[in-house]
Amino acid sequence: MTLLDTPTLLETLSRILRPEDLLQGDAVRARSAAWGWTGADGCQALAVARPRTTEQVAAVLRACHEQDQPVVTHGGVTGLVKGSVASTSELVLSLDRMTEIEEVDPLERAMTVQAGATLESVQQAARTAGFCYAVDLGARGQCTIGGNIATNAGGNNVIRWGMTRQQVLGLEAVLADGTVISDLSTMLKNNAGYDLKQLFIGTEGTLGVVTRAVLRMHTLPTSFNTALLALPDYASMHRVLRVAQQRLGADLAAFEVLWDDFYRLVTTPPAQGQPPLDQGFPLYVLVEAQGTSADRDGEIFRDAILHCMDEGLVADSVVAMSSNDRQRLWDLRDDVEQLARIAPFRTFDVSLPLRSTEEYVERVTRRIRSRWPEGHVVTFGHLGDGNIHFAIGVGEGGPKIVEAIEAAVYEPLADYGGSVSAEHGVGTEKQPYLHLTRDAAQIELMRTLKGALDPKNLLNPGRVLPPRLDRG
Amino acid sequence: MTLLDTPTLLETLSRILRPEDLLQGDAVRARSAAWGWTGADGCQALAVARPRTTEQVAAVLRACHEQDQPVVTHGGVTGLVKGSVASTSELVLSLDRMTEIEEVDPLERAMTVQAGATLESVQQAARTAGFCYAVDLGARGQCTIGGNIATNAGGNNVIRWGMTRQQVLGLEAVLADGTVISDLSTMLKNNAGYDLKQLFIGTEGTLGVVTRAVLRMHTLPTSFNTALLALPDYASMHRVLRVAQQRLGADLAAFEVLWDDFYRLVTTPPAQGQPPLDQGFPLYVLVEAQGTSADRDGEIFRDAILHCMDEGLVADSVVAMSSNDRQRLWDLRDDVEQLARIAPFRTFDVSLPLRSTEEYVERVTRRIRSRWPEGHVVTFGHLGDGNIHFAIGVGEGGPKIVEAIEAAVYEPLADYGGSVSAEHGVGTEKQPYLHLTRDAAQIELMRTLKGALDPKNLLNPGRVLPPRLDRG
Repeated sequence: MTLLDTPTLLETLSRILRPEDLLQGDAVRARSAAWGWTGADGCQALAVARPRTTEQVAAVLRACHEQDQPVVTHGGVTGLVKGSVASTSELVLSLDRMTEIEEVDPLERAMTVQAGATLESVQQAARTAGFCYAVDLGARGQCTIGGNIATNAGGNNVIRWGMTRQQVLGLEAVLADGTVISDLSTMLKNNAGYDLKQLFIGTEGTLGVVTRAVLRMHTLPTSFNTALLALPDYASMHRVLRVAQQRLGADLAAFEVLWDDFYRLVTTPPAQGQPPLDQGFPLYVLVEAQGTSADRDGEIFRDAILHCMDEGLVADSVVAMSSNDRQRLWDLRDDVEQLARIAPFRTFDVSLPLRSTEEYVERVTRRIRSRWPEGHVVTFGHLGDGNIHFAIGVGEGGPKIVEAIEAAVYEPLADYGGSVSAEHGVGTEKQPYLHLTRDAAQIELMRTLKGALDPKNLLNPGRVLPPRLDRG
Repeated sequence: MTLLDTPTLLETLSRILRPEDLLQGDAVRARSAAWGWTGADGCQALAVARPRTTEQVAAVLRACHEQDQPVVTHGGVTGLVKGSVASTSELVLSLDRMTEIEEVDPLERAMTVQAGATLESVQQAARTAGFCYAVDLGARGQCTIGGNIATNAGGNNVIRWGMTRQQVLGLEAVLADGTVISDLSTMLKNNAGYDLKQLFIGTEGTLGVVTRAVLRMHTLPTSFNTALLALPDYASMHRVLRVAQQRLGADLAAFEVLWDDFYRLVTTPPAQGQPPLDQGFPLYVLVEAQGTSADRDGEIFRDAILHCMDEGLVADSVVAMSSNDRQRLWDLRDDVEQLARIAPFRTFDVSLPLRSTEEYVERVTRRIRSRWPEGHVVTFGHLGDGNIHFAIGVGEGGPKIVEAIEAAVYEPLADYGGSVSAEHGVGTEKQPYLHLTRDAAQIELMRTLKGALDPKNLLNPGRVLPPRLDRG
């Protein structure tokens, strides 16, 4: 090589990274491209870079910036909207070598972690120190904190603790040109200029690559009170939610709704779960309070449930009397594997105002059933947060069928000011429907941000923002 | 006027606004330019525009954009960092005609309000509906929700509810060119693309003008348990905080620290307050829990205090036994008017990690006293959030003296990763010190954002971001 030669990108990367940290060929193909459910094949990227430090991430991005190389960032690759599926012309930047819990600080109630740490390892480190990390979701063993931050992950306890955005005290991210933006502050309050970390939370890696974060730790609850309630109608559900909020106050930690169809699925063999309450009620609510006064919280919780029974809001109920009881109730909620019985199916994640839930769910169900009378619409969700999940199966079908199902779920949301993505993000999958939730001015402002921070459009290009119509 | 004439800005504005909504001359001078303490004279702006609708705000900004007219937005003009002081070449855009509480929605636990509504009116509307609005601060009667949002206001209950950022569900703002970005959603969860409202929260009106907001309402507490504790040292304070967090859990609503000097000031005549505990302890903590189980919360609270006493963490304590008792304790904390006794003085608002508080406060105090042996350093703060306020008086002095005091407070923060602004913002006053908290890359990224959203630099120009050094 003479001084006049420009080294290729891979040559440059091989000077930044150890040989085992730069994968090519079959080693790339052996890796997952996306979460199993989306059905994608192995990773197709031109290479996978696995930096071990923020400095290496910055050097990789600088090199890519110089050579106009698009980059797709990988955390745990558990996203549900195909954001991680890289093409053969894209480099995958994986954070899977940066998994360290760097510091756990009980006094400041904060932990500093690398972006590749799994959610479960973060939860465990907090627990070991006598605290809890507030976000929890099914993919905890694989999903990473960097991915949680990039997608503003939600999960089961949002009603109490908020989403991932609320857990981030400090953040370090690398911009498209390799600039490191590092604010690893542990402070709850910092109004010294713009709060730049907000740029990297929930923007799905399109504005920067999250490398490290300072996360809040909360007081570890010492009491868990859980019940499953059968409800006669939506109006009762709204009133039960109000009672739970008023009587359980800030301890209310979950208000998960299982529609009749979901409950039937997870309490009918071959599902392992026994029905703790009769099947056939329209709605079931799994309600949980997490408190810090173990000897008093149980009474407060049972009083609240009794009050709902007395008021005629609850048709039947079962209160967990042991941690095994509690686990059995949660196992019903979490037994999404039963959805395989309606395969092939697609899952959906939307949110809308509570008052419109009944009408909306009925509209979606009617629209699916009118076209596919044997179709399945299985409904469940974090309804305390206005968040509904559907699993919809109508038998085998090509892209046209998928499109028709998506339209049935997403289009009515526009009438209610709902969101086509409550917690899963946009990726590439939901782009065609983003306009139902965000108007042209909002999408244009997103583009302005993207253009300002990543003018060469190199970071997760084509994700989140749909292509401009006028460019075809 | 012929078709070739360009109307002046004021001519254009007079077509958009009613005559009484466009102030000029003495009517401008009669208005406040900034909060009394900052000592500024009346408003010097070239005119004051007082639109009544979002459409009028947009039309005014569009007109200003066409004519390169800088605009300074006014809410309640209670800021403490001189962001509202307009020059004779700047137009003031006041939101004081847009004060409506448009909707209070108990089911969604959300209220939609115009930006000019005062904090107090918002609190009152929430209470009337049986809820609470979570942010509270001394200026509640004058400060507006738009200003609270633009500055991400904090206050007394951040330890429980978070700052203003955490209260905003939906937001409407107008960009510099008049584009309206409207997302008046009531939903807790919405990951459909970038969360644009974050751009307008805490950016002090430099990226857009907030016109309306959807705010969260929380469960109205039914129990208030309050105590004042005298503490022997910082280590005890940290342990008391830990006990409070563990035993009061999510009900812990305030952990306000009064240093000896502050306590002495508010409990010595001419102050009205009697000392409920002896003067002379190094630190006093006002701790409060707000709960929803009135008949049980008192016992939990008193048990927690007793536990601290038993552990030797608390030298003396008084627990409020009535709402009058409670009010008397809060009156001590809120009696900042006693600071007039050390006038002239300057107030400061900083944050830093808890573990460094003792060393930092001692350094600041030593630095002031070494130069002004008779100087006063009065210290208090929301220490549960790491937030300290100082009032410092050294007698009369010119700009050089002010600069020396500021340096004494701000410079040591760099050693602890502290912030030169916990909750008051930057305005123009803290710009010289922003670099102590934000490095060059962060400040450059703030400039990138400002340039992208307001390329003509018309919205609150010169606020937040210090002038570039290389441009003099």
